[in-house]
Amino acid sequence: MTYDLQLTSTTLIKTLDLIGTFVFAISGAALGVRNRLDLFGVAVLAFVAGNAGGVTRDVLIGAVPPAAISDWRYVSVSIMAAAVTFWWFHGVRQLSRTILLFDAAGLGMFAVSGTQKALGYGVNPLLAALLGMLTGIGGGMIRDVLVNDIPIVLRGDVYAVAALAAAAVVIAGYLLRLEPTVTTVAGAILCFVIRLAAIRSGWNLPANVVDQSAEKQRSP
Amino acid sequence: MTYDLQLTSTTLIKTLDLIGTFVFAISGAALGVRNRLDLFGVAVLAFVAGNAGGVTRDVLIGAVPPAAISDWRYVSVSIMAAAVTFWWFHGVRQLSRTILLFDAAGLGMFAVSGTQKALGYGVNPLLAALLGMLTGIGGGMIRDVLVNDIPIVLRGDVYAVAALAAAAVVIAGYLLRLEPTVTTVAGAILCFVIRLAAIRSGWNLPANVVDQSAEKQRSP
Amino acid sequence: MTYDLQLTSTTLIKTLDLIGTFVFAISGAALGVRNRLDLFGVAVLAFVAGNAGGVTRDVLIGAVPPAAISDWRYVSVSIMAAAVTFWWFHGVRQLSRTILLFDAAGLGMFAVSGTQKALGYGVNPLLAALLGMLTGIGGGMIRDVLVNDIPIVLRGDVYAVAALAAAAVVIAGYLLRLEPTVTTVAGAILCFVIRLAAIRSGWNLPANVVDQSAEKQRSP
Repeated sequence: MTYDLQLTSTTLIKTLDLIGTFVFAISGAALGVRNRLDLFGVAVLAFVAGNAGGVTRDVLIGAVPPAAISDWRYVSVSIMAAAVTFWWFHGVRQLSRTILLFDAAGLGMFAVSGTQKALGYGVNPLLAALLGMLTGIGGGMIRDVLVNDIPIVLRGDVYAVAALAAAAVVIAGYLLRLEPTVTTVAGAILCFVIRLAAIRSGWNLPANVVDQSAEKQRSP
Repeated sequence: MTYDLQLTSTTLIKTLDLIGTFVFAISGAALGVRNRLDLFGVAVLAFVAGNAGGVTRDVLIGAVPPAAISDWRYVSVSIMAAAVTFWWFHGVRQLSRTILLFDAAGLGMFAVSGTQKALGYGVNPLLAALLGMLTGIGGGMIRDVLVNDIPIVLRGDVYAVAALAAAAVVIAGYLLRLEPTVTTVAGAILCFVIRLAAIRSGWNLPANVVDQSAEKQRSP
Repeated sequence: MTYDLQLTSTTLIKTLDLIGTFVFAISGAALGVRNRLDLFGVAVLAFVAGNAGGVTRDVLIGAVPPAAISDWRYVSVSIMAAAVTFWWFHGVRQLSRTILLFDAAGLGMFAVSGTQKALGYGVNPLLAALLGMLTGIGGGMIRDVLVNDIPIVLRGDVYAVAALAAAAVVIAGYLLRLEPTVTTVAGAILCFVIRLAAIRSGWNLPANVVDQSAEKQRSP
């Protein structure tokens, strides 16, 4: 009852943020390699995928300079992920499933850490959940835009919903005054599980079929 | 002469902002449906189209967190617009003209409310007019980028010019110390009328024809 | 020894920033004409190419409103570049090499002025170098995204590396307490020279070849 919840929570957020950055950066770097970017381009895509969601959140809540700009570890972790992906990248197609796993893990971590940070800045709990979701999906959206893809999060799979579920757990814990470490971990795991189930089952949100013949296919 | 101009203006701005958000969100949602996004993607495109211009303006003038992040009504209005469009969307092609009307109305409202807000933050009147224009066109630009279109505002029609005209009316009223409610409404109406005339007449700004044979066509 | 380094440096940064804005804006306007944008679209692309890197840097370090929003000269210089390019643009293809030169000069100027500004805001020297690089490449990235190209900086040429080299010179000078004017000019020149050499020699960073048959070619 008397231990330092605030410190625990802060350390936890930082750790989750760095792990999430690394796994998201791998997904960004992988997309960069698939699009034949050069080494620098792969590093930028890794950094963007790993950090742009959090940077956007920080700019919106006024937490400038954002962590990714003031703390060297975020850049280092991103470059490390880019290097690993760039030189160890034999046959990206076989790895697409692995990348989905990385992505699912990063999504959960970012959703919960983003929600916690927004709460810490006094944002209304419900909007904090949306900012947590943005933290989770923003990097991937900008990553996709940079290589001229319509962001995959907008097209299918239960993706943002999984991030929202994680954020909702954190918010519920906050409102019920539960131990933040527990709800944070629980939220991240819930998101990961929902993503895995969605990937295995091919779950999708409904889409509105306008014209079958003119269907745009997302390039593989 | 003694009534509270400031209050009137503030309430007016908020109301115009919410109406503008709704109609822009419909244009975003419609584009989302046409690009076969899922329900979540349609909601994101609605939110982006309805709010990204104002959010960008707020970030640039230091008004963080932006209204769209701190006031639940913007998110609610956007989701409502997405839901209406998603489920009531029979044959989007027949509605493209209606969407243009919504868009014209939203453009005028955003241009005047954005200009007023920038003035309220002490921005130089002439730059405030550009920020008003940005409020009007920014959401649509990001909306188009997200579905891999070159922003339509950059390609043709007298669109940004209409927004600038609305902003200019507000600025003129501000410099001449006219009643803001009057100039705000007049500016929005002027923008709407210019847009309607431009749509009916096919007005376009000049473009520089470089190479007929290699002409890139915007996909319909 | 007693003259006002700070003032010299500030004036130098402002001048470099405006020159850099002009040359970058020309590259943006040229890309706009090639993509058949209308006059307004060309002006927007000019403004984005000339200012978006610096605006992003300013938002990230909390320097709001950014210079491009609070100082009319940036908008004026951008519009001037757009007008010159739009009406004087006979045969853009013959000029592609000239545009590359403009681009190289602007890159060096932005990299050094961006690094200096970040240092002035107390950013850690190493991250200031990255922000200087961002100042140099950010406008071009958003410019390319707006016309649906994968940012060319991510695809090839020793481009960002040249910006980083310029930033590194500024940082080295800062750490060694050298006269900022000297290191700023030296950094910008180094960047320009590296770019010219890279363009002449066709230098590229390594790219990871995944699948020859499915190679995506950037449209010329």
